[in-house]
Amino acid sequence: MSAPPTPRTPARALFGSRWTPRPEHVSELGLDAGLPGGFRAAGVASGIKPSGKADVGLLVCDSPSPVSAARFTSSGTAAAPVLLSRERCRLQALRAVLANSGCANAATGRRGLEDAAKTQGAAALAAGVQPAEVALASTGAISHELPVDAVLKGILAASSQLRGEGDADFQRAIQTTDAFEKRACLQVRLPSGTVRLNAQCKGAGMISPGFATMLCFVQTDAALQADTAELLLGVCVKRSFDRCSVDGQLSTNDTAILMSSGASGVAIAPESEDELRLGEALDALLRALAIMMVADGEGAGRIARVLVRGGEGEAVEAVARAVANSPLVKTALHGGDPNWGRIVQAVGAAIRSPPAPAPVALDVAIEGIPVCSSGAAIDYDADALARAVQAQEVEYEIALGGRDSIQAETEVFFSDLSYDYVKVNAEYTT
Amino acid sequence: MSAPPTPRTPARALFGSRWTPRPEHVSELGLDAGLPGGFRAAGVASGIKPSGKADVGLLVCDSPSPVSAARFTSSGTAAAPVLLSRERCRLQALRAVLANSGCANAATGRRGLEDAAKTQGAAALAAGVQPAEVALASTGAISHELPVDAVLKGILAASSQLRGEGDADFQRAIQTTDAFEKRACLQVRLPSGTVRLNAQCKGAGMISPGFATMLCFVQTDAALQADTAELLLGVCVKRSFDRCSVDGQLSTNDTAILMSSGASGVAIAPESEDELRLGEALDALLRALAIMMVADGEGAGRIARVLVRGGEGEAVEAVARAVANSPLVKTALHGGDPNWGRIVQAVGAAIRSPPAPAPVALDVAIEGIPVCSSGAAIDYDADALARAVQAQEVEYEIALGGRDSIQAETEVFFSDLSYDYVKVNAEYTT
Repeated sequence: MSAPPTPRTPARALFGSRWTPRPEHVSELGLDAGLPGGFRAAGVASGIKPSGKADVGLLVCDSPSPVSAARFTSSGTAAAPVLLSRERCRLQALRAVLANSGCANAATGRRGLEDAAKTQGAAALAAGVQPAEVALASTGAISHELPVDAVLKGILAASSQLRGEGDADFQRAIQTTDAFEKRACLQVRLPSGTVRLNAQCKGAGMISPGFATMLCFVQTDAALQADTAELLLGVCVKRSFDRCSVDGQLSTNDTAILMSSGASGVAIAPESEDELRLGEALDALLRALAIMMVADGEGAGRIARVLVRGGEGEAVEAVARAVANSPLVKTALHGGDPNWGRIVQAVGAAIRSPPAPAPVALDVAIEGIPVCSSGAAIDYDADALARAVQAQEVEYEIALGGRDSIQAETEVFFSDLSYDYVKVNAEYTT
Repeated sequence: MSAPPTPRTPARALFGSRWTPRPEHVSELGLDAGLPGGFRAAGVASGIKPSGKADVGLLVCDSPSPVSAARFTSSGTAAAPVLLSRERCRLQALRAVLANSGCANAATGRRGLEDAAKTQGAAALAAGVQPAEVALASTGAISHELPVDAVLKGILAASSQLRGEGDADFQRAIQTTDAFEKRACLQVRLPSGTVRLNAQCKGAGMISPGFATMLCFVQTDAALQADTAELLLGVCVKRSFDRCSVDGQLSTNDTAILMSSGASGVAIAPESEDELRLGEALDALLRALAIMMVADGEGAGRIARVLVRGGEGEAVEAVARAVANSPLVKTALHGGDPNWGRIVQAVGAAIRSPPAPAPVALDVAIEGIPVCSSGAAIDYDADALARAVQAQEVEYEIALGGRDSIQAETEVFFSDLSYDYVKVNAEYTT
């Protein structure tokens, strides 16, 4: 996607939301702290973007025994870089990531796969690794062919600029309509020692990841086993990017990659206290980045969390998604309108046609103020509710099936639907 | 929903869309032609709407042996009038419909059911029929309690104003955010004689009916058997209101009712040429009304049809809905942007994670111009495409699984996503 003319939203603090507090054993370093030991990165402008902004990023892990894990979009029209990375890479031992913005290389058929393979080969050569050790990630307009020559030129330039402080350049090279940077440099205190945890992340629209995310790259100098990397990334992606939605639109290119260099010398044993604490840190980091993506949702003003409890997991999930993706709920959120009837409507659409003729037992609370009990309106302080929905973050709580059947529980973070979402998406070909 | 300050869209001709031509044996009468024989109607302002506009409508069939059929929303939080009509009415032999706008009587619990029952009893008394012969339909804001006293006052006033030319008043009483009237007075030439077919219909937002519609009332003076009424309404609703979407939001109150008085003396025998021709007329009428609803979609500028063909019915349906409800496709439609990459994205989200590593074979054409073949971009005349998507009606054709597997086929009509949709829904509590 091409960049919008001006930033729309001020930058947010990483742990700025009440929904993602910073764990005590995690400290934020300055964004100029550089990558964890064992990693180098670069980002350059290769000419893919007509604006001349950075568009090719290269990330290399210099460890003799790197460990990694990856998650990709579940789209049935996944882009060439996703298909190639998923099928042809050693995902548990990646040594490099080649990322580009300005072109998604999606809906490009066999030509797209061949183009992706060419850039994978070139990146392998430039980084001195095997092609199967290079994961690919692209983001940008769908349907355009990848300008391979430009990418090759970018790989060459980037490979000569790789450095431990290259994460800011790499970040710039993966951004598209993002209004602000989603990047982190953390220090994590574990029982066996202190490790570093960095991330570069992009995403503002076409966001409703399923078992994956928009582009997010995470590096640590902790020494992980492959199963541990797989477990930690899998669980944390499910609790973060999978739980957020800007517009309910699954991308063709979502990719999340965790890489570990082991350069700190701190080994994370499976099922150890170290693993638990590192998992907590990764969980907090990815949830914070996911909230930042929602807050940077194209045109987003307010953001919200819907928390659904009930007797049955599938219904709870369907209800949470239906509320988060309802344009009626999202416009009410935008307008600061305490219009909870629209929540009841969205719930009803998600749990269609129950056999009983009675109204569905359904409790709704907004910012802690109960407004609907057992499917019917109850008395509440309308002025207090009207004030509560003016907040920058609004929480909706829904209980299905009456209070006695609270077993399953889920949450989805989402943005509002604003004039600017329409403007960004109707006026720019993205 | 409260009425918007000004109409947003000019009125449309009933058969004005290329997707719903008028069958040759169907003629449009003037909108002052009155109801078919055997029907009377009225609409009054009872004070439910603060604007003082009409809000209570009464429709009565005076036939000694009326025949009817009904369809309702499949929402799990269906409104009280839907629950009561579905469970307590003789839906195959209705003699009256009581409809109100300004209050949906949804999310109102047992109190809402009792309130609905009171108005049903009052309407029965006023019309001189049994309560089980009176269907109820409400539309308006969800969560407000029905102002029963106002409705009773309205029933009393309406019952004294019932007349054969009352359909325009009835129509006004069921409208909410509608920018223009969706009403029809038709004459249908059948082999056994000529019959009348009228309809009053409302709907502009919260529209993605599932096995039902927004409010739509159809009257004919043909003499139908109950099974025939059931069959015709069922098939025609599935091909019309079920195939359209403004915002993908299933309403709590969708209701469609077909009533036949038999006053014409033309009896429709099952499986006769008469049945076929009447079915064609009803089909054309309901499809034309559905398109009018989409064209009147809150803030709608352009409307579109997505036509999906492929090997498997479930996938075809999922893909058509995904495209029609995609905010990215809808904003591109609004902006007149030939951004077919977003169609590929929506298709991919609907058919997730195929086993094969190859791109999904997918053909896309816009306004007859092929742009994507077997999942990859092909050469096309970009200027011609850019002109084509400026039309008021845009058609997208999608073929799944390559050209050899074209078996299932479906269509969905949908509106664009505009600034005005956000304005209507963010600034007015509806």
